[in-house]
Parts: sequence; structure tokens; C-alpha cells
Amino acid sequence: MPSAPAKHFPLIAAIDLGSNSFHMVLAKADRGEIRILERIGDKVQLAAGIDENRQLSAEAMQRGLDCLRLFAQMINGLPQGAVRIVGTNALREARNRGDFIRQAEAILGHPVDVISGREEARLIYLGVSQTSPDVPGKRLVVDIGGGSTEFIIGQRFEPLLRESLQMGCVSFTQRYFRDGKITSARYAQAYTAARLELMGIEHALRRLGWQEALGASGTIRAVGLAIRGEGNGNGEVNPQGLKLLKIRLLKLGDVERIDLDGVKPDRRAIFPAGVAILEAIYDALELDQMLHSEGALREGVLYDLIGRQHHEDVRERTLGSLMERYHVDLEQAARVEAKALSAYEQVADAWDLRDEAWKELLTWAARVHEIGLDIAHYHYHKHGAYLIEHSDLAGFSRQDQQMLALLVRGHRRNIPRDKYVEFTADSDKLVRLCILLRFAILFHHIRGTQEMPKVQLKAGRRSLEMVFPDGWLENNPLTQADFAQEAEWLARVGYQLKAR
Amino acid sequence: MPSAPAKHFPLIAAIDLGSNSFHMVLAKADRGEIRILERIGDKVQLAAGIDENRQLSAEAMQRGLDCLRLFAQMINGLPQGAVRIVGTNALREARNRGDFIRQAEAILGHPVDVISGREEARLIYLGVSQTSPDVPGKRLVVDIGGGSTEFIIGQRFEPLLRESLQMGCVSFTQRYFRDGKITSARYAQAYTAARLELMGIEHALRRLGWQEALGASGTIRAVGLAIRGEGNGNGEVNPQGLKLLKIRLLKLGDVERIDLDGVKPDRRAIFPAGVAILEAIYDALELDQMLHSEGALREGVLYDLIGRQHHEDVRERTLGSLMERYHVDLEQAARVEAKALSAYEQVADAWDLRDEAWKELLTWAARVHEIGLDIAHYHYHKHGAYLIEHSDLAGFSRQDQQMLALLVRGHRRNIPRDKYVEFTADSDKLVRLCILLRFAILFHHIRGTQEMPKVQLKAGRRSLEMVFPDGWLENNPLTQADFAQEAEWLARVGYQLKAR
Repeated sequence: MPSAPAKHFPLIAAIDLGSNSFHMVLAKADRGEIRILERIGDKVQLAAGIDENRQLSAEAMQRGLDCLRLFAQMINGLPQGAVRIVGTNALREARNRGDFIRQAEAILGHPVDVISGREEARLIYLGVSQTSPDVPGKRLVVDIGGGSTEFIIGQRFEPLLRESLQMGCVSFTQRYFRDGKITSARYAQAYTAARLELMGIEHALRRLGWQEALGASGTIRAVGLAIRGEGNGNGEVNPQGLKLLKIRLLKLGDVERIDLDGVKPDRRAIFPAGVAILEAIYDALELDQMLHSEGALREGVLYDLIGRQHHEDVRERTLGSLMERYHVDLEQAARVEAKALSAYEQVADAWDLRDEAWKELLTWAARVHEIGLDIAHYHYHKHGAYLIEHSDLAGFSRQDQQMLALLVRGHRRNIPRDKYVEFTADSDKLVRLCILLRFAILFHHIRGTQEMPKVQLKAGRRSLEMVFPDGWLENNPLTQADFAQEAEWLARVGYQLKAR
Repeated sequence: MPSAPAKHFPLIAAIDLGSNSFHMVLAKADRGEIRILERIGDKVQLAAGIDENRQLSAEAMQRGLDCLRLFAQMINGLPQGAVRIVGTNALREARNRGDFIRQAEAILGHPVDVISGREEARLIYLGVSQTSPDVPGKRLVVDIGGGSTEFIIGQRFEPLLRESLQMGCVSFTQRYFRDGKITSARYAQAYTAARLELMGIEHALRRLGWQEALGASGTIRAVGLAIRGEGNGNGEVNPQGLKLLKIRLLKLGDVERIDLDGVKPDRRAIFPAGVAILEAIYDALELDQMLHSEGALREGVLYDLIGRQHHEDVRERTLGSLMERYHVDLEQAARVEAKALSAYEQVADAWDLRDEAWKELLTWAARVHEIGLDIAHYHYHKHGAYLIEHSDLAGFSRQDQQMLALLVRGHRRNIPRDKYVEFTADSDKLVRLCILLRFAILFHHIRGTQEMPKVQLKAGRRSLEMVFPDGWLENNPLTQADFAQEAEWLARVGYQLKAR
């Protein structure tokens, strides 16, 4: 089913003819990297136009084709092979899909593949794994679409189990919330229908197990934002928030009255069905929290197009390309990284930093701390932090990016402890990590033009002592002046730096 | 006197042993581009240690050598040829300079060149012309140093006249403000001494003439900032501000009491002498306004080191390297640029935009509007604006960069008219320019995958009409939808967009 790995096309596009909406992404493919240039989408609601005889109505076809004419104008100069168009559940369902596909292909000038639910699941997992943090354990990915919902359990880049159920927020809206009223009885019907669907797969999923759950669709994103808007959590879906959201919806009683954060007007009608399906999934799989993943089917199609599939640490690739893009002095970054890690080993226990996550964060920061120099020397630590905070860094969570940005922001001049406190309960540890990073940077201030001596570090609760070989500091006045200045910066955040 | 063009060194450094302060810049040289990695400096005040027998005192030498030991640690691994060290007036003056230079070379491991005033002037002009906006007319550059003041008239990259006078803010402080008291009599002495020095060159300078005056030293920068702090101008030096600043200084009466904006504590002592010299220059040359240029001797030495000298439009080079760094789709940029210019030609008169400066700004914006995509697709117009506002863009003034950033910020989604109004009295014209840019971008939204038709533009006071060939719009629904959406954005800033 997947096309053969593409030749090198500078521009590639993926179109997803979904049951709820059609989407197109146009991207630049550059040495195995994908950069999104355009995103266009339209809530066509194809699934809403399928009748009991599984016939796609003329109106729904028209809505779809009108949308495709827009897309077509942007891609009809692209060569064959550079565009992949996939149809999902509504087109799998519709008996007269052939009529639609013929017209769609005529408009788009590229073939339309109606893909199976399991192939859809494969592509979703590819999209998620290429853009989400690479974690060692197993991962459950759920994508609630308009007509079907996909479930994948995978490990790193390998999907281990792929399932697709015939339930979606558009088809369930048609069935249970057609007139927009939200009542307990209807909600219960939708919920129960979803539980029944889930019975076929829940045991297999639970037998395999997972350490992390990710949700990859507009429904899950919107539910997470609505839950946050009600004062629960930080954008992730959690069981308490979900229960309260259900109660809120029942109180509102009508989709017209939905005014929840993150639920745009054109999503209101299908929102209750989405919540009911998600609640059923939560209960059936006894889920705790589910984070939203930006990557999904469309991203999977793009990665499939450029032939990238397996076995690569996404974050390593992302950091490497960040360093390359901003012309980082690689040797200097490597020196600082090595020194930061050796400093970490010396003080991690005393400073309660013995955790792979802190160590990783320090490594990343050492590699990218200088990227802001590519913008300007003046305030370059701030530019670096801006780039890290705002860039699409595949494989990194928002939380990762913000922590990393805060470290880079503090790698020279003042350590912005207030910002650290605002962001994390672990601000003390972040300050300590920052001190280690700064030590490594100052230690290699001379950028490899000189052999540097061994230095012993001793960490106290609020102090760091550096022991240089006898007489070395006196003979190296730049380092001496650097650390004297550094002692003043550290005093501002309550740490004493001693050099001898 | 200048060294032969250097081989390719990845790291280069310039050290300037000035009469007031010593400075070092360490830079990365990459395909003819210079990126500053480090700037270190120290107010050594060498000139203050020269006695009436033109002997440099042991204390002053010591201050200088202590500073060089710091510098040395950073450069002593760099190969011969990658570091250029220049000494200026204090070392030209001091009879015992040989003692100092021998010790300095032993510490630094690289040769020290004491350069002539005219060579200094050449390097200053090189630094200024490589980093300031390239203007067609002649340019006067003044650099008030600690021991000498250089004057250059040049055109584009060619210095036409180079002069160096034996007056500087440190030597004049020694002579007229040694105990820190500021009186009318002393100020008049200093001013008169400067006028006498200037008599030797003012006619030659005025005969050649200039269209623009730039000042390239800490003194001129500090005077501009102090004038602004007193409520005059925006950082440039102007005659009224200068007069008022003098009156203010006389009122203060003592350098210890100077608390002016932009005058750091370690500049207070030499500030009155600098103001007196600058006022003399203003009067002798009947100057109007003088802008500060960041580039000067040190930058000139770096450009000299990488062998870049002449005949290149700095701004073209800067924009080109910006586009390359952020992977701009060059073909798309060229299409948008061409379309923006053809749109400009059609409406420039009606919209009162007939001025080379507006046309240039539009051209630049068309070339770089997509740079933010390299950071992320989400909000990329904002990222692009950030990059343009904060990058070191050689050849562009701060004003240029901010205007360009505002245009890029407004190239999609809403036009931030409030920001335009805040920034410039010409906000109406900037909005119009932005509309032209957006038109060109939307017109080529399909990125060259389709032949686009001729479109006629008609500009009204608050409207823009686009006339497409009959039936074309109806057959190209993406463009039609784009311009329908655009009409809504433009309505928000009071413009009506009509398409037919």
C-alpha cells in the first residue's frame, strides 16, 4: 500500500481526505528534513453525508470537491510522486466512493489512495514517532477521527499492534447528537456504543501494555484545552477533568451553548460525541493521562513520502540539525558537553541531580547554547532561548523545549531564577544545572586554544568549590577573571563560588 | 602596511591597543562572513601615562600588559596570521614604545603593528563602510580616539581623503581637565585647542564635501545618548543638543557629578574633553547631524584580515546571506519580489509611494518575508520579524531593520497598524507598502506551480482594485478564496479590496 520511497522532490504535499475534514500540508524536503510551508484545511464533514445505504450524498461530494479545487491550485504543478493523497473511513464506507475518487483525481491530477484502517494506523504512528519525544518504553497512540478511531501500541519507531474501530466523532454525532441537544440519555448511548466497540480490542491492548499514552487528533487536543480552560491540568487529558467536562456539557444541554476554551465554533457540533468516545476509551483502558501529539496522519504521509521510517533518535537528529542550521562551533560544543558531564558526575549526588532527565537536559544545553550567536552577539543567550522556545523541534515536548530555553537563557550574564521558579517546582535543581553548564562554558572560554588542566569540584548546599592545580589560575588570568566575575553572578542566586 | 590577505582561518581576532582602551574581538570567518564571538575590553588609558618627555610610565605599561595577559589566554593557540594587533596614537607618541611592544608580543605571541594615523583612518573607513548603509553620496567619518582623531571622506567603499589629528579625549583630559573640574575657562581652552588643530584640514574636507556624517567612537556614541537623555533627538548628535549638553556640564562643574544617560562611570573623567572636541568639529565643519556607526577600527581590521575591501553592496550581501542562512525558497522570493515591484509601479503615484526608499524597503521585504519558516510554521511572520529586528545586519541602520521587521510582521494575518503608528509618522505609507507585499505573496501563493495571469491594479485612497482576466478567478478557487479572506484583513485597517 505505501508508495515506494520517493525520488528527491524539493516540494512535497500530503492530502488527507478525512471523515471530518480535508487537510493539505505542503512541505519542503531538504536532506531528510521536512519543513512545513503551508497548512490548509476545511471541515468538509464527509461522514455526515453518508446515508443508511452507505451512499455519499451529492451535497457532501460537492463540499469535498469544492475544497479540493482550492487544494488543486497549489499542487497541480507538482510532479507525480511528490503528492500523496489518502482517503480514510468515510471513503472506506461510501459505496459510491468511486464517483468521488474519479472526480477528485481529475481535479487534483494525482492518484487518491483509500487506505485501510491498519495502514492509517501505521502512518499515524509514523507521524507521531517522528515528531514526539523518543522514550524507551511502549507507547499507546489514539487518534479519534470523524469516522474511525485508530489505536496503535508501538515502541520507538516500530508499531507493534495496530487497530481501527468504526467509531468517530462525526458518525457518532449523526447517530446520537443529530439535533444538537446534549442529554444524559444520549450521552450514555454514545458512551455505551463506544464501550461495545472497544470490547473487541481492549484485552489485546492491555495485554501488550504501555508506559505512555499520546492522543493525535483535533478532538483530543480540543478536549485537553477545554479541560485546562476549566482549571484542570495543563492541556493534557486526565480522568477528573474529563468527568467534570462531561458534567459541564450536560449542564449546557445544547451544542450551540458550548463556549469552552479550545473548542472552535466549527467543532461544537461534534464535540459531545468526541468526549463520549474519549471517556469510553479512558474507562476501557483505565487510562491516566494522555498528552496531545502534533504529529499524526498527515505528518506520517510526508515522512512516508521521503522514505524515513525507522531506527533513528529523533531528538539527536533534531539537535544535530539545529546545530548545523545555526552554525554552532561543533568542537566547542563537544568540549563544553564533555566538561559539563564530567562536572555533573562530580556533583550530581551532592546536588540531588542524579536522574537521567537532568543529565540529558544538560547535554542538550551544552550542544545548543551558542545558537543565538548566529543572530547577533549582543544578547545572544536571549536569541538562543527564543529559537529553542519557538522552533518546531521534532521529538521534544513543549516542556523539554521550555526547560532547555531557560537553561540557554541563563548560560551567561544573570541566571533568571524568577523565570525558573515560575516555570517549575524544581527551580533549585535547574539553577544548579545552569551553574554546571556555566562552569563548563567558562572553563572552555578559550575555545580549545589551550590545554586545560584537571579541576576538582566540591559541591556544598549553596556553594561550589573549584580546585585548580597549584599556581595554574595565577598563570591564566582570563580564567581567573572569568571565575571572579562568575562568583558575583552566582552570589545573586545565593551560591558561593570558590576557586583555588 | 596592511598584511597580505589572510589564508582561510576559521577563527580570527583583532586587538586594538588604543590610547583610551584596549579591545579584542574574536570572530568566526565563514565564507567571507564575519560573526563576532567575543568582545573584551578594558579602559587602560595608556595615553594618560605618557609624560612631557613622551615616556610611557611603568604603571601605564603595567596596566596595558595586565590587560593583554587576559587577551592572550584566548588567542595564544591561534596560528600566525589569524590575529592582527594594531597600536594607535599613544604608541605612536611614546618614545619608549619599543619596551612595551616587546613585552606585549611576548605575552600575545603575535606581532604588534603600530599603524600610522592615515592607515588607522583607512581601517576605520573599511570598518564603517562594511557595516553601515551603503549610500550613493559622499560620507564624512569622524573617530574621536583617546590620543588622536581621524577624519575620512569616502564614497561607498573608497576612502577619498584620510586625515588624523593629534587630539583625543584622553590627552585633552590630561591637558585641560586633569583634576576633574569643569569650568568655562578650561572648556574654552580645550575647544580652542581643537579648533586650532582643525584649521589644518577643515578647508580640504569642506572642499570635497559630504552628504552624510557618521561618528565611529565611544565618545560620539556617549554624546548622542546623553543628548537623547536630555530630551533632544534619538541618539544622533545635533548642534542644539550639543550646546545644551555643554551648558549642563558647566553647571555640574565636576566630572564626579556627571550622571548623564549613556555616560558610564569609567567614561566620566574623559567626557568633557570629548564634548569640547566634538563641538569644535561641529563648528569648524558646520555639521548638522551625525549618526553613530557601530563599525570602526576593530571591524576594519577584521575585514582587512579576511581580505574584503571594495565594491560590494553591503546590504545586498547581508540580505543574500540572511536568505541563505534561513533557507529561503529563492525562486519564490524572486517571484514575489518581481510581482511586488510591478504592483508598486502601478500604484506608487496614486498612493504617494514614489520614493526610492519605499521601493527598496518593499524589495527587501519580498526577499526575506519567509525567513521565519525556518524556525516554525506556526506564527512564522513573527519569528521572521524577530530575526530581522535582532540580527546584526551589516549595512542596515536600526531604523531600516525596524521598518523591515514591521513589514515582515504584517505580511500575513493581521497588519499590526498600531505598531506602525507607534514607530513612524509615515504609518499610512507603511500600511500601503504592506498591502502591496501581501498582494504579491497571495498572487504567488501557489509557488510557481502554475502560470499566473496579468492583473491590473487600481489604487484609490482607501481601496485597491484587482482586475483579473475574465473568468480566471472563477477557475482558480484558491486565489479567489485567498483574496476574499484578504479583503477581510484589509477591512480591519480601513482598506477595501475588490477583485474582479
